[in-house]
Amino acid sequence: MGDLQTDQGESLELTFVPAAAFEAVRAAAAPASAKARAFAALARVNTLSMIAGAWSGHIGTSFSSLDVMSWLFLNELRDLDKGPAACDIFFSSKGHDAPALYAVLIGMGLLPRELLYRLRRIGGLPGHPHIETPYVQANTGSLGMGISKAKGMALANRLAGMPRRIFVLTGDGELQEGQLWESLASAVRHKLGEIVVVVDHNKIQSDTWVHDVSDLGDVEAKFRAFGWHVSRCDGHDMDGLERTFRSLDAVPDRPKVVIADTVKGRGVDFMEGPALKPGDLYGYHSGAPSESSYLAGLAQLSAQAREAYGALGLGPVPTEITVRNPRREPRQTDNLVGAYEKVLVAEGERRPRLVALDADLIKDCGLISFSRRFPDRFFECGIAEQDMVSMAGGMARRGALPVVHSFACFLAARPNEQIYNQCSEHSKVVYVGSLAGLLPGGPGHSHQSVRDISALAAVPHLLMAEPTTEAEVAPLYAALLDANESAYLRLVSVKWPMPFGYPANHRVAVGTGWVAREGKDIVVIGYGPWMMANAFQAAEDLQARTGLSVQLVVLPWLNRVDSGWLRTAIGSRHLVVTLDNHYVHGGQGEMVAAAAATLGLEPAVRVVSIGVESLPECGTNDEVMAHHRLVVAGLVARFEAACAPLVR
Amino acid sequence: MGDLQTDQGESLELTFVPAAAFEAVRAAAAPASAKARAFAALARVNTLSMIAGAWSGHIGTSFSSLDVMSWLFLNELRDLDKGPAACDIFFSSKGHDAPALYAVLIGMGLLPRELLYRLRRIGGLPGHPHIETPYVQANTGSLGMGISKAKGMALANRLAGMPRRIFVLTGDGELQEGQLWESLASAVRHKLGEIVVVVDHNKIQSDTWVHDVSDLGDVEAKFRAFGWHVSRCDGHDMDGLERTFRSLDAVPDRPKVVIADTVKGRGVDFMEGPALKPGDLYGYHSGAPSESSYLAGLAQLSAQAREAYGALGLGPVPTEITVRNPRREPRQTDNLVGAYEKVLVAEGERRPRLVALDADLIKDCGLISFSRRFPDRFFECGIAEQDMVSMAGGMARRGALPVVHSFACFLAARPNEQIYNQCSEHSKVVYVGSLAGLLPGGPGHSHQSVRDISALAAVPHLLMAEPTTEAEVAPLYAALLDANESAYLRLVSVKWPMPFGYPANHRVAVGTGWVAREGKDIVVIGYGPWMMANAFQAAEDLQARTGLSVQLVVLPWLNRVDSGWLRTAIGSRHLVVTLDNHYVHGGQGEMVAAAAATLGLEPAVRVVSIGVESLPECGTNDEVMAHHRLVVAGLVARFEAACAPLVR
Repeated sequence: MGDLQTDQGESLELTFVPAAAFEAVRAAAAPASAKARAFAALARVNTLSMIAGAWSGHIGTSFSSLDVMSWLFLNELRDLDKGPAACDIFFSSKGHDAPALYAVLIGMGLLPRELLYRLRRIGGLPGHPHIETPYVQANTGSLGMGISKAKGMALANRLAGMPRRIFVLTGDGELQEGQLWESLASAVRHKLGEIVVVVDHNKIQSDTWVHDVSDLGDVEAKFRAFGWHVSRCDGHDMDGLERTFRSLDAVPDRPKVVIADTVKGRGVDFMEGPALKPGDLYGYHSGAPSESSYLAGLAQLSAQAREAYGALGLGPVPTEITVRNPRREPRQTDNLVGAYEKVLVAEGERRPRLVALDADLIKDCGLISFSRRFPDRFFECGIAEQDMVSMAGGMARRGALPVVHSFACFLAARPNEQIYNQCSEHSKVVYVGSLAGLLPGGPGHSHQSVRDISALAAVPHLLMAEPTTEAEVAPLYAALLDANESAYLRLVSVKWPMPFGYPANHRVAVGTGWVAREGKDIVVIGYGPWMMANAFQAAEDLQARTGLSVQLVVLPWLNRVDSGWLRTAIGSRHLVVTLDNHYVHGGQGEMVAAAAATLGLEPAVRVVSIGVESLPECGTNDEVMAHHRLVVAGLVARFEAACAPLVR
Repeated sequence: MGDLQTDQGESLELTFVPAAAFEAVRAAAAPASAKARAFAALARVNTLSMIAGAWSGHIGTSFSSLDVMSWLFLNELRDLDKGPAACDIFFSSKGHDAPALYAVLIGMGLLPRELLYRLRRIGGLPGHPHIETPYVQANTGSLGMGISKAKGMALANRLAGMPRRIFVLTGDGELQEGQLWESLASAVRHKLGEIVVVVDHNKIQSDTWVHDVSDLGDVEAKFRAFGWHVSRCDGHDMDGLERTFRSLDAVPDRPKVVIADTVKGRGVDFMEGPALKPGDLYGYHSGAPSESSYLAGLAQLSAQAREAYGALGLGPVPTEITVRNPRREPRQTDNLVGAYEKVLVAEGERRPRLVALDADLIKDCGLISFSRRFPDRFFECGIAEQDMVSMAGGMARRGALPVVHSFACFLAARPNEQIYNQCSEHSKVVYVGSLAGLLPGGPGHSHQSVRDISALAAVPHLLMAEPTTEAEVAPLYAALLDANESAYLRLVSVKWPMPFGYPANHRVAVGTGWVAREGKDIVVIGYGPWMMANAFQAAEDLQARTGLSVQLVVLPWLNRVDSGWLRTAIGSRHLVVTLDNHYVHGGQGEMVAAAAATLGLEPAVRVVSIGVESLPECGTNDEVMAHHRLVVAGLVARFEAACAPLVR
């Protein structure tokens, strides 16, 4: 990991509200609305502290939905004591409000309170909902699937003779996803009155105001036009929520939607949506609060908790203090997305036909500079990947050079068919998928993109590549822009200290790579920053311990390998190890192995493929690499095992 | 091809209207509506004859949209003479109305008239639109992308300073696709008044009435709720079309939709939607008319053409007669979808939790029997694959065993992310993709599924398999239903005569296969009926000519191979040839090659992979197999070339 420094937040004390306080609220003799207010106020404290403790999480959407979730769990969901398979069902379709859900579940006594300290840790609470957590009813995090899932649950419940009410929370940015509208019709047709959808209408999506990204128009009219019963209320007013949900009881045979008007970041004034200045991007969608933001936010939330708790006559709010785990940060890192941001602007200057498209990830995809430099050539498409890709296809047919951006996990999968369709037109579009690979480990498997190579590799006229170092971004991107076919640039977003550099004067050629470390015994072929950095260190360790020397080769091309180059890269070695920051199946390694088999080299060359082999775990980066045996020590052991036949 | 018989339609005479008649109509001094009526009436004759000549095509939707298309090309699309890059733009988003479009383009003199005889033939007019055909502006056939593409075209045109009007025709069944609704918002935001969408509202989708599949509700209210300008008219009334399109001129800055009420199959009384009897499925969505249907339909259309043409004072309609190319049909074939239909019912009897879901392909996916036997366990989801898959995921979470059906091309790609999400829940869903592979060659590359293995193979907890013979369907399907993970059954829909049978008493085991033909020199591994039948014949021919003997092995597993089994299957041979009815990249062969490389066999084994290597061509099955060098003769040559080093 190179030269480490420790973050200054090491000694931050986190304040949590213990289980007893929630129990006291639930047991209090008071109106339901007053109890729900107090419950939500306590849960907000825990939510903020969980996210601060995890160094990562979604504050804004957790706070906007917390009052609704608290009301539902305290008053609407029946038979929670019968367990998750037999009770009424709640899940969040947007999913990034998971910290709020966990805080509520823990407050309800439905999850062990120790998990407060295990957000985004392995074996703890994943960054997005996963059904292995009790009372989490659906895996979400990729948007727009919630109503479809609820319909399936309702129909299967009916077939089994066990109808249950099903509450689905959606975001408002999520309403930009086509699947949401696709899912509405048959709920009406099947008269699924057991489904209640609550739209957490906080008006701000990842980057900024929904109406600036892709205006929703008249949401109520839209749902009504699709045949749904529509209610609307203040999503932070417990009395209003109570009146609204009671009014739904009179509508037994139609699916229902409640538009809950909420405030993103509700509870901490400087995190609240309306505090957003014109032209600024919202700062509390994801990520941890700074130390000072945490303390200032905590002060406000604690005051609210005191007031609401006190109103129940329960006295002062008990608290528990925990010291946050330190986070190690390397001093010098390669930042591929940062490099891409600069390169995109430079290519924009050079190529007047270049236009950039985004799906509500302008910050995370490195698009701020381009959008400011070329506002007329920047198209914010909202959370609508299929639409974005087909739009890009249309643009390309009319002479533009569109570059389409999203997270790799979404870009490769959601518009998978649209990408194929575009490529079938022989037009040119460049796709850029960031957040690629297993890391960061915090968001969980909905965001850990370890299947994107496989999902797209067979698309004809689509060239796929991934840079390993900052310096490789510019030449590789230029090659993709120049190629006579569409292209996919795969970008790892985690910053990483690199123990080797991109060779000066390397000439980019499709299907060929470059040598990161010389060695005579085995050749290791792979791509991407942390994987190759770990492999480099593993090679050093292996040589020090066993004398075996590793030739480490970077092959940036993900779906092309030049057989002549491969023959040379293997040379007279008998063992090839491939490394994939991706599933082994369908990854670069499988392609390299197949190409090696096609060469029919004599004497025989054996190929060992290393990569991800199971659903990605959620946790810190170190935890996740260790779990998947891709840390340095894991690689050393696996290289050594692969070499065993050589040293027999 | 085995024991052939010739279809009885060999001597059918086809009647076409020559170019001169269309020219006369266009030149006539008459009101626009009368000219358009005559033009459309002539084009209907050619459309019917093209489809009869191709032995395949979509009559119903071609006839419902023909009047609208004729009006647009004659009166709305400006600057057609400037060529496809400079004129106003029209394309059909539904795409299966391609025969109507071709008839109109030929009638307009924008395509060579010789192409009338080349529908669904290689080098001719593909079954779905492809931009290689002049004036075809977009590749369509996979539904719901049209408005997105139009938006991209409009925005790029504006950037280039060359605004053009863009007319997009959609189906009404197509309105079930979420992407369509996803695409609406930003058209309003960008004030794309140059876009006019016409909904060919013929009320019948592939199988039956739209309102019985997934009712659209109040279509006008829906589009209005999304901010679009909405008009409605009779899509067969030229005067009404004229009034409607003129009224749009007053709405320059909003995207506009015209709901055109039409009749599926319009023009031939027994093909018209309203002739559909309750409970019956619509019979003229796809496929060729029978000889008697053709002749009866032609008589009606000719009468209409005579009347409309005569009304212009142009005298009798000139015609040309062509004899239809005969179609060879093998006497005995394996029919995998037919076998599946029976097996699904049998498994439905055995497994009470099994439910079947369909996306408007009840006939083509072999679901009629199940839907009649278990109406409560059959769910028609409409053209809404994402919704269908997530619904199935919800069902599986609540104890059902959902089996999800569509064409492989759509099932693997459109809900690609939803399948991954479902599998990440460790629940069990079975996916069945029919129409898999390169054949039939007629529909074109939007329907030729040669990328589905790659698109799904890396999904964790998803087992993929394909039967080669009818007899293999039942045991393989049972194994998939019994597996402790989700599964994908890939089904070739073309019926094929099989030169070998499924071995009696073969025991299905994941990752292992069976021997179709014994041979000592090389081992050929593959799957699926026509590919393995061709390979069998190629092996016979090769042995007869060169003495080289081929061991032909069927491996039904598409993303798993057992390394012990593979070692045995290769034995002491030095050459493995893999066969994929799929792109080589990401297919079974690449997996087998990689597995062979991992074995590190001594002496070295060389692997040669054969499969699809370019965008699938559209044509007759023989044409398409020949183009991709997968006919028997092509395989013989390629086997021999692969063997060359062995006999050096």
